[in-house]
Amino acid sequence: MTIAQKKLITMAHGAGGSQMGRLIKDTILANLGGSASLPEVEIALEELDDSAAVGGVVFSTDSYVVKPLFFPGGDIGSLAVAGTVNDISMVGADAAAISCALMLEEGFPIEELERILKSMSETSKLAGVPVVTGDTKVVERGALDGMFINTSGIGFGGESLQKNIDVVKEYREFEENWIKDSNVRDGDTIIVSGTMGDHGVTILSTREGYGFESEVQSDIYPLNKMISSALEEGGIVAMKDPTRGGLANTLNEWSEKSKVGILIREEHIPLTEGVVSACEMLGIDPLAIGNEGKVTIAVVREKAEDVLESLCKTDPGKKAAIIGEARSDIRGVVMETVMGGKRIVDMPAGDPVPRIC
Amino acid sequence: MTIAQKKLITMAHGAGGSQMGRLIKDTILANLGGSASLPEVEIALEELDDSAAVGGVVFSTDSYVVKPLFFPGGDIGSLAVAGTVNDISMVGADAAAISCALMLEEGFPIEELERILKSMSETSKLAGVPVVTGDTKVVERGALDGMFINTSGIGFGGESLQKNIDVVKEYREFEENWIKDSNVRDGDTIIVSGTMGDHGVTILSTREGYGFESEVQSDIYPLNKMISSALEEGGIVAMKDPTRGGLANTLNEWSEKSKVGILIREEHIPLTEGVVSACEMLGIDPLAIGNEGKVTIAVVREKAEDVLESLCKTDPGKKAAIIGEARSDIRGVVMETVMGGKRIVDMPAGDPVPRIC
Repeated sequence: MTIAQKKLITMAHGAGGSQMGRLIKDTILANLGGSASLPEVEIALEELDDSAAVGGVVFSTDSYVVKPLFFPGGDIGSLAVAGTVNDISMVGADAAAISCALMLEEGFPIEELERILKSMSETSKLAGVPVVTGDTKVVERGALDGMFINTSGIGFGGESLQKNIDVVKEYREFEENWIKDSNVRDGDTIIVSGTMGDHGVTILSTREGYGFESEVQSDIYPLNKMISSALEEGGIVAMKDPTRGGLANTLNEWSEKSKVGILIREEHIPLTEGVVSACEMLGIDPLAIGNEGKVTIAVVREKAEDVLESLCKTDPGKKAAIIGEARSDIRGVVMETVMGGKRIVDMPAGDPVPRIC
Repeated sequence: MTIAQKKLITMAHGAGGSQMGRLIKDTILANLGGSASLPEVEIALEELDDSAAVGGVVFSTDSYVVKPLFFPGGDIGSLAVAGTVNDISMVGADAAAISCALMLEEGFPIEELERILKSMSETSKLAGVPVVTGDTKVVERGALDGMFINTSGIGFGGESLQKNIDVVKEYREFEENWIKDSNVRDGDTIIVSGTMGDHGVTILSTREGYGFESEVQSDIYPLNKMISSALEEGGIVAMKDPTRGGLANTLNEWSEKSKVGILIREEHIPLTEGVVSACEMLGIDPLAIGNEGKVTIAVVREKAEDVLESLCKTDPGKKAAIIGEARSDIRGVVMETVMGGKRIVDMPAGDPVPRIC
């Protein structure tokens, strides 16, 4: 094989979106898949959901390679804790514990490490989820850009999940034990818990060479308590945190896995002025940029207002809004624009901001 | 603060041994600790055991930064699966599932990625433990040396663990629900499941500039099935896989956490000729070098022969041997040398081989 023929990993393979999706399906699942037949696996690798479930335990993992390590509104430590707690929450489980695996470059300042660990500790306390196990690796100078963190997490289905499922069953047949991407049905209401794009724009604004300063802050927040309250209201069938690839990626994944169209209304999507102006200046789509303290919720229509109200009562959900609904009469994801037209919201090829998380 | 005063991460901070121990206690635990009071945490971060236990679930994490990625006897993929399965096994649990978090450098050949994933899949099948969840991150060229993998794992206490604990209780009071580093007592027999140092010497021999070629192969192996059989025999009170820092680190950790001395006999420690000659040539101690398919077991004296026999019946445990015993009349770890003298086996400052795992 010549060098020209060799297939190589590109940045888009890690950026959420369609190219990453193909790598996962064609290369990763093709080799690591096949465990779905094991009876104790309730949410398998193949489902590509936010978490797996095995023998009643919800289990999730994420590595954090964000650059820079510190930015307005957070750092790699708060991100690593909130990100994994949120992934556990997305299937409706109560996060119980997380791990902390540090990968450090030789020469990394211990003072910065301490600052990051303190931030992990604070976020862990805010979430009420302890760090119970860890690992530390050091590689020689030049083999790693400063620091990466992997956090994994475990959780259990609790009373709020059961309450939620009972409410769903009042409105339709529902055979699932967990909240999954494939559960969205015609007529379900789509809610976002707040403004879109803040984290991605914040990371972008800290990078050199972009020539703009923004007042936008990252939205990093552990959402487990807010989600637990929303589940108490009941009627939620799917949840997803719009991280890499943003809202556009999340809704397209739902549409694909649930085999239903989704219609959203541009005027209802919460956006800060800072994000709007930054995106206009840079020519990027705020719907394709990652968030780290937001959740997208699909809920049976009859319970939508109750769930919305519950979200709005919380700090991270104050600006929650209904942005659309699932529709069997359309294909894919479609947005009614502010101008009154319609446009297809494609699965992005990848998040326009690299190393966002 | 001047640059001279700034404390920086060094390679020794990630090499097992005493310097890593200090970083973990003074920096990591000082910030992330404090969850031990939570009632559902059964093995807490502070215990620095191979795995945590929370609400009946055993949970462990490890990142793999081994260099090179491919070496005689294995690769980063087989290592990442076996290493985490083994950590779960060390507390006596049955490994149930693992995660796979890939960190890739832009430009990494997809062909190599596929080879590594196949190897993960094979090791996962050998262990009977599925990969159920994952994550993929890509960073720009130069921000990471090829590829790192984090695997985390979950497991549950099973029948073999309960059987083992019942047998321990025939011989002494035992209040623990798990096999822990702090359980070793005066008179317990110390067993290793095979030859020491193979993995570390293999990694060293593949590095350029060392000027030797060795026929030693890495010992990477998922030990969960072997350990499950040994637990069926019963009487096991502590287990640890002698990875970074090798047997010297493992025994010193036991001695410290269990507050008991350990006496081992040099002539009984299994070593291959290849490891002996490589270590002599390089002036390194085979007891301070990491292994990836071996376990050190402390067992009540009366059951030592039964456990040994059970190990010897398995592929990875064929060369298992009794190497010594716990002794309240000595302090720390002491070795009777082949020459008849005695020497203290210190906690190594760090594994002499960097990026061994």
